[in-house]
Amino acid sequence: MSASTRESKLVFQTLNVRREAAVLFVEISAPPMNLEGPELVGDLVSLIQQSEVDDTVQVLVFKSADPDYFISHVDVTRIKENRDAAARLNGDPSIGQLYRHLSASRLVSIAQIEGRVRGVGSEFILACDMRFAARESAIFGQFEPSFGVIPGAGGAQHLTRLMGRGRALEVMLSAQDYDADLAAAYGWINRALPAAELNDFVRSLALRIAGFPAMGHAVVKERVNAIALPTVEDIRRDSDLFLEGARTDEFQELTQAAMKGGFQTRNGEMDLARLVGEINEHRTE
Amino acid sequence: MSASTRESKLVFQTLNVRREAAVLFVEISAPPMNLEGPELVGDLVSLIQQSEVDDTVQVLVFKSADPDYFISHVDVTRIKENRDAAARLNGDPSIGQLYRHLSASRLVSIAQIEGRVRGVGSEFILACDMRFAARESAIFGQFEPSFGVIPGAGGAQHLTRLMGRGRALEVMLSAQDYDADLAAAYGWINRALPAAELNDFVRSLALRIAGFPAMGHAVVKERVNAIALPTVEDIRRDSDLFLEGARTDEFQELTQAAMKGGFQTRNGEMDLARLVGEINEHRTE
Amino acid sequence: MSASTRESKLVFQTLNVRREAAVLFVEISAPPMNLEGPELVGDLVSLIQQSEVDDTVQVLVFKSADPDYFISHVDVTRIKENRDAAARLNGDPSIGQLYRHLSASRLVSIAQIEGRVRGVGSEFILACDMRFAARESAIFGQFEPSFGVIPGAGGAQHLTRLMGRGRALEVMLSAQDYDADLAAAYGWINRALPAAELNDFVRSLALRIAGFPAMGHAVVKERVNAIALPTVEDIRRDSDLFLEGARTDEFQELTQAAMKGGFQTRNGEMDLARLVGEINEHRTE
Repeated sequence: MSASTRESKLVFQTLNVRREAAVLFVEISAPPMNLEGPELVGDLVSLIQQSEVDDTVQVLVFKSADPDYFISHVDVTRIKENRDAAARLNGDPSIGQLYRHLSASRLVSIAQIEGRVRGVGSEFILACDMRFAARESAIFGQFEPSFGVIPGAGGAQHLTRLMGRGRALEVMLSAQDYDADLAAAYGWINRALPAAELNDFVRSLALRIAGFPAMGHAVVKERVNAIALPTVEDIRRDSDLFLEGARTDEFQELTQAAMKGGFQTRNGEMDLARLVGEINEHRTE
Repeated sequence: MSASTRESKLVFQTLNVRREAAVLFVEISAPPMNLEGPELVGDLVSLIQQSEVDDTVQVLVFKSADPDYFISHVDVTRIKENRDAAARLNGDPSIGQLYRHLSASRLVSIAQIEGRVRGVGSEFILACDMRFAARESAIFGQFEPSFGVIPGAGGAQHLTRLMGRGRALEVMLSAQDYDADLAAAYGWINRALPAAELNDFVRSLALRIAGFPAMGHAVVKERVNAIALPTVEDIRRDSDLFLEGARTDEFQELTQAAMKGGFQTRNGEMDLARLVGEINEHRTE
Repeated sequence: MSASTRESKLVFQTLNVRREAAVLFVEISAPPMNLEGPELVGDLVSLIQQSEVDDTVQVLVFKSADPDYFISHVDVTRIKENRDAAARLNGDPSIGQLYRHLSASRLVSIAQIEGRVRGVGSEFILACDMRFAARESAIFGQFEPSFGVIPGAGGAQHLTRLMGRGRALEVMLSAQDYDADLAAAYGWINRALPAAELNDFVRSLALRIAGFPAMGHAVVKERVNAIALPTVEDIRRDSDLFLEGARTDEFQELTQAAMKGGFQTRNGEMDLARLVGEINEHRTE
């Protein structure tokens, strides 16, 4: 298969893909705010499938076309569709298993983060092999517990292993926003960098890694994953618990209150930490 | 049971409890230096028992009435009494199991630390779900190995999981004092904050968490604990090893030498790291 | 056995040993660049064997006689001889098992790092119980994946446990050099200190620990290792995978290209991160 044939297949609804050497630079573009719906899930499935069988691809770099939102979070109105889209990869209707597949892949994945990345977006970058963020603009949140549920796609698994029990509990139970410096101090990301340097840093790193022998990538990932990657069962259990919680009246009521307050809108989520606090204040009064 | 009835039961020898919304603010007050003796252990047992059955309580915040000592450490003259007091919770005569019960509880626990917190005090904050400390005044020590014994209530378990093998070995084998910034860098605590901001920060965080759905607290704690909480067996083994060590002549001799040097006195423990160094210098001459 | 008899046995080809109280200060001196060959491996075996049976020794401090190189890495031309030398300890022909033996020993080991420490050198300091480095001069690298292989002596095991999945993958897959501040932020080392303070800091710490009861060292190490020390099987598997990779044509070709570029020379390895990038650029053109 020629390179041009391969290129021509990499056309997506929500991803702009540019190739350089053995690196695919993948820009997430799902206006108006990079919510994760079935189009983005489906595109991620296709991208991973096509890249894995193409041995001229070694590294995937993920960034966002939207300076304010990397991936905002799951589209809560389309959870069922998302699961159907994810199931196309290996039959398991779970975003968490899709993400875990990426973590376990021979492909090296790097997240280059500007703007907000919360909920299932945070879980996506946690599934990537490395995470670098713009000090001035990146904002992190794993806010699902403010709706009474556990993160459904591996967030609790990764956060606990990366930052330990105390900080993982704080991050999730507080449902707060975290800036890049604090995220780096906690181990949520590898490093916070000045926004002006981020793109060059990640590009150089990706090209460097892509130039090294593929057999090294595979064996290192296999051995690191054997220690630190959550098991399929752990991911499945969290997913089940999330779905269980999402069926409760309490979750449904909070979601409706949040929608009225601006949830799933660009403006409404600029300060999501405040929004989830307010809907819960209302609830307990 | 009415709120006022509940309030009236929360009267303790060594704890001052104030309630706000679904948060209990618990001030440890066991003059002259917040040594952990059977009164404090017994009060912690009662507090936990009463709070767990009261579903209007979601969060416990622990702070100290003494600006110099949060919990100094166990009263070494009353280890047997402490164990009897701890056994009231579930029959296991072990401070470590009492602490682990708190970690595993649906209640969210937050330590707000000013002053010295060493030995079994450090193990208490490690069992809490989150730890925030005053940059100017908090001092941390897990100094048991300077008496030839392992921390008896889970300290080695938590420190190793939070900060990794190298730093956990350093902290325990050196028996040094650590300030809040270094404790944060090592992962011993979540964050060091300016003393002037600490109380407001923790109060806001506690009230925020308490306002979120209880079902979220429970499921997040369950899944995080499944990864990062030491097992009952691990806690028991450390407790047994501590008791074994505490029965040796070497431990007894060091304890007596320490008592002569000011151990278990306010003044003598202001610089405990120096004190434990001196009694061992004497020993090896 | 008298102290003088013991002293007289501590004569090595590549180590200068000085004793103070219960501490052995061990200076690595294998000119021209502290490559790890069979002489150094054999000396480490002898040092560990002799120290373990001498109950007047409690702590080993490792430093380097060469300000630019602590341990540069394995001498790739002598891997078979190194394995034979390591096998003298307990029959297992593996540097990783030699290192693991040190980690599991009752002896407390401290690495005092100035200059470059890469590859099997990084794995050595990771096997030590604690690691302190000079902020101005220490440089860390775990660059084996740039030759297509996994670190063969436990590096992947320790790095993953110390710094988590994302940073461990970055460190190994990037094959970059890391300075002491970044190494400390990532948890590779305990702390970075000003070079002018490093020696006094480590000497004081070593003497302090050596003055505490030996039974405390042993029980703390046993319990921490039960949580955080890689198993014998994990070390063996990495070693096997390294040897498998090192037999490939790709590894051999890269090694030969590196040799032409200055690999295993003092000058050539001052900027090894650049060198391994260049040989791979050449390869993929």
